[in-house]
Amino acid sequence: MDVLRLFGIPESEIAETLRRAQAAGIALDDLEITTCLRRGEVEVVTRYEPPAQPVYDAFAALVRERHADTLFSDDGRSVDEQVADLLRRAPARTIATAESCTGGLVAARLTEPAGASAYVRGGLVVYANEAKVALAGVDPALIEVHGAVSEQVARALADGAIERLDADVGVGITGIAGPAGGTEEKPVGLVWISVAERGGARIDRRVNLPGGRADVRDRTTTVALHLVRRLLLGLGDLGS
Amino acid sequence: MDVLRLFGIPESEIAETLRRAQAAGIALDDLEITTCLRRGEVEVVTRYEPPAQPVYDAFAALVRERHADTLFSDDGRSVDEQVADLLRRAPARTIATAESCTGGLVAARLTEPAGASAYVRGGLVVYANEAKVALAGVDPALIEVHGAVSEQVARALADGAIERLDADVGVGITGIAGPAGGTEEKPVGLVWISVAERGGARIDRRVNLPGGRADVRDRTTTVALHLVRRLLLGLGDLGS
Repeated sequence: MDVLRLFGIPESEIAETLRRAQAAGIALDDLEITTCLRRGEVEVVTRYEPPAQPVYDAFAALVRERHADTLFSDDGRSVDEQVADLLRRAPARTIATAESCTGGLVAARLTEPAGASAYVRGGLVVYANEAKVALAGVDPALIEVHGAVSEQVARALADGAIERLDADVGVGITGIAGPAGGTEEKPVGLVWISVAERGGARIDRRVNLPGGRADVRDRTTTVALHLVRRLLLGLGDLGS
Repeated sequence: MDVLRLFGIPESEIAETLRRAQAAGIALDDLEITTCLRRGEVEVVTRYEPPAQPVYDAFAALVRERHADTLFSDDGRSVDEQVADLLRRAPARTIATAESCTGGLVAARLTEPAGASAYVRGGLVVYANEAKVALAGVDPALIEVHGAVSEQVARALADGAIERLDADVGVGITGIAGPAGGTEEKPVGLVWISVAERGGARIDRRVNLPGGRADVRDRTTTVALHLVRRLLLGLGDLGS
């Protein structure tokens, strides 16, 4: 069984890739391919008999080519494991979070793997605006001018996490998980995520996530993990 | 379908209660009783036809009598919902966390319900000892003398959460989730949890939890929620 994991593409794109594979003469009938959407990631699981290895290799090569930027794992590793490995390997880096709408979920996921204490410094859950200011050092003027859910505040949260927890990498998250609190301009599901290296690279992303409160929180957490991975690999944001 | 939820008793105790019910002449054959262990809680789910209502009432009364201290829900509400309701209703109180081994899971669970921003001030994830000192204001001497996993540090974390996040109720957690980090004196699964009201009541509990890292983290989170519930109800710790 081989697993390809992609993030940031619709499942329909994989269907299109399967059509192209067929058109290119790859004998897909020799493969048992299952694609599923899990936590916002597309997982392509393929089972096949040993003689079909060349067929799988051709298929995997096509996926790699067509989805170079969104394919993040072809060895079964989850994004969580990749982030853990990237933080641990030289140059070893530490990480810290400052989360609003996710309420600690990103810190909880980062600390899930055994040995996380080697690279997780800690995190701030800054639900109240006063906490954003007092704990994460967000300039209250930013909140006043741009609102608590804004790119500026997400960036300030990432910087605050780095500063206050003395970490190399910071994650800042602010958004509207719902069901209440949305406006026309800033609807439920709007989240700003900022990941930054101390004095270095940064990725900021605005997402508009579908679903209920739990979905928005869970999806945001997954996006944040992917942004950390991209930052640590020096990739920049998707399509940027 | 009726649900009784208990916390802090072994499932075997419920089996004993069923035997006593039978012995007391309660026609258990008229009830379809399922007991299961979920996240450390015992859930007794009973299905029955309307005519069996008096039988169920007699059974539920026996459970209430025998398990007065551990029965926490007979109306289907989870401990999460109870904590949310208790914090919201007069006198309304706010809550904050300072977590080590649970890494944000308690904050994440407290912020799961819609409307949590009304009572959750925020939280601190203080994995590194330096973070415990710098963010939660734990006296470094406490860590030096008693170790990071100790009643004293758990109490200091609860107090620090109250202080730093300006909350009415604080939760402090420090423990060894494993798989590494355990010693003979402080094995994997040892966790200290402290919940406190500003200048008021407090419950400290030491637990020794079985299972792997994820189990220890999840169980600790559930115990913490139950301690918050007991604190808010003015109950004190179980058996204390």
